[in-house]
Amino acid sequence: MEKIKEVKEYLKKNNIDFCFIVNSNKKDSNFLYFTNFDVDFAYLLIPKKGKTEIIVSEMEYSRAKKYSKIKNIKKFSRSKEIRAYIKKKLNNKRIGINYENVTLGDARRLRKYCKIKDISKFLLKTRSVKTYDEIRNIKKACLTASKIMTKCIDNFYKFKTEKDVENFLIEETQKNDYDLAFKPVVASGYNAAMPHYRAKQVKLKKGFCVIDFGVAYKNYNSDITRTVYIGNPSNKEVELYNKVLSIQEACIKNILPGIKAKKIDSYARKNLSGFIHGLGHGIGVEIHEFPNITEESKDILKKKMVFTIEPGTYKEKKYGIRIEDTVLLKDKPEILTKTYKKLKVINLNS
Amino acid sequence: MEKIKEVKEYLKKNNIDFCFIVNSNKKDSNFLYFTNFDVDFAYLLIPKKGKTEIIVSEMEYSRAKKYSKIKNIKKFSRSKEIRAYIKKKLNNKRIGINYENVTLGDARRLRKYCKIKDISKFLLKTRSVKTYDEIRNIKKACLTASKIMTKCIDNFYKFKTEKDVENFLIEETQKNDYDLAFKPVVASGYNAAMPHYRAKQVKLKKGFCVIDFGVAYKNYNSDITRTVYIGNPSNKEVELYNKVLSIQEACIKNILPGIKAKKIDSYARKNLSGFIHGLGHGIGVEIHEFPNITEESKDILKKKMVFTIEPGTYKEKKYGIRIEDTVLLKDKPEILTKTYKKLKVINLNS
Repeated sequence: MEKIKEVKEYLKKNNIDFCFIVNSNKKDSNFLYFTNFDVDFAYLLIPKKGKTEIIVSEMEYSRAKKYSKIKNIKKFSRSKEIRAYIKKKLNNKRIGINYENVTLGDARRLRKYCKIKDISKFLLKTRSVKTYDEIRNIKKACLTASKIMTKCIDNFYKFKTEKDVENFLIEETQKNDYDLAFKPVVASGYNAAMPHYRAKQVKLKKGFCVIDFGVAYKNYNSDITRTVYIGNPSNKEVELYNKVLSIQEACIKNILPGIKAKKIDSYARKNLSGFIHGLGHGIGVEIHEFPNITEESKDILKKKMVFTIEPGTYKEKKYGIRIEDTVLLKDKPEILTKTYKKLKVINLNS
Repeated sequence: MEKIKEVKEYLKKNNIDFCFIVNSNKKDSNFLYFTNFDVDFAYLLIPKKGKTEIIVSEMEYSRAKKYSKIKNIKKFSRSKEIRAYIKKKLNNKRIGINYENVTLGDARRLRKYCKIKDISKFLLKTRSVKTYDEIRNIKKACLTASKIMTKCIDNFYKFKTEKDVENFLIEETQKNDYDLAFKPVVASGYNAAMPHYRAKQVKLKKGFCVIDFGVAYKNYNSDITRTVYIGNPSNKEVELYNKVLSIQEACIKNILPGIKAKKIDSYARKNLSGFIHGLGHGIGVEIHEFPNITEESKDILKKKMVFTIEPGTYKEKKYGIRIEDTVLLKDKPEILTKTYKKLKVINLNS
């Protein structure tokens, strides 16, 4: 509830009557964030003063009562009743909405009867600083993702295809009663040159194999990538891996509260060729959230932020290497994902 | 490519220079629809005249070349280069965008240099009428989902918990090398009163158990629900099930090209109490797309549309029953999901 309080203070300071989260045509992760209730179609109303409420359709009412942290629930059986209720509530008011999620269509409908203000930046920044409960959930997700990654690497010699590896990751996630944070990446040989490649029913190729994986606990995500080597790496390949690793470790070590995100990205980029994506991203109820750790980022890294650090080097049609951890920033950075970091060499014939 | 042609004709007729699909902060399923390439961050430009192109970041270039149906691909290594390229292309032009997906934030940036027009309704309607290839993909997805559902019901007596059922569905989907269309619903006893309940690590309860499941083939979805009975149903319970079933079958039988969607919904709603959601929805690359088959729908059902018909009856904290098929409308409706429809009684002690 401390975050709802922050919203109310912001509304007062900015003379806005309501924060209105539209979780309809497009789900808005802010709904999940404030309510902890995962639903396709619902609205959240946080007033400057008074009780926060959610508005749901009849078919979601039982689930809302069971899962929503916001216990003040309005239900309606028809969508026109929902529209009428919202209109009555917001008529002639100043409302703050998330400009980076509300669609033009919804905005056009809202503008007919109320004044809308952009509060997207405020929401991003509020969410980037995690509460005690959020950190606990992310830690649990990271711990489980790490354990599964360890087990996956330990069993790697048994796998025949990329899909075998993916299936192992999915089945272990289910066994632990967690959700996948995203569809895992298992990319061997030249497939690893595609950072978002999806595993196929193809034999594991020799060379580097990138495994990018995460689980979610109570809607909070984890994200970890490891790269193993299938076959016998050349000295040059070992050196290349060690270079990515040393840069990843140096990036993490260099982070202190107050540092500019782009400074960390530049450090990696300056030292690593073939680095074709950003260095990292905030993580929480969304896999990618504030802050961005990229070349163009204007974000500042602060205490209690949780983000990934994931440098990589890629050569089209040849190979890919990426090493990623989820990191919590306290006075110093704390790595939440823990498993092998030295290059693991897999001999498939053993 | 026939759908790209339709877009170009629409642009010409309406004097719009480009259709611009923004698949960035919020993914727009129209990107997946036109390119068959599933990616988080990319843009699609369909000009009134000339070549359609997609714009991607360097990290997605290899995947784009491999998977995108649109082979004219522009790549850039920095997002500011992408923004500059788009600005140059669209400067002072009239562009059609999807008002139901483009955010206020993106619109604010676009309006600085071009005129935007809403083409969301056109896109919805175009997509609702499926091509030969789309129908083939949906049929494959429906066939596999049906086979898995049959196997699930045949093996039901072995399951101890709701999670066991869910895990079975997920593992069978992987074995067949398909993707899940959505997170399955397995809801036993009073949990079945929540249409979107997620399976838990709890013992299967006596009474009706709702299983709502679907797989995707080449990004095209299927959707099927069956309700089984665990234990010995009373005569009243069997009657209730048969009522839902007969209404479901009658709804499908009553559909002919040109009929109003809401007329079919009303028929079910008139005859069924405790029916707390819409009767059905279009299905394609999205699980829920045009047309809506609800009380308030203005949509007309046409040939080559594919949609679900899924009446249900629910009593809070007591029970839930739902029967759903995916249906293709030709001259007559054709049911694409095929498995048991008579009430299956599961004796867990056998």
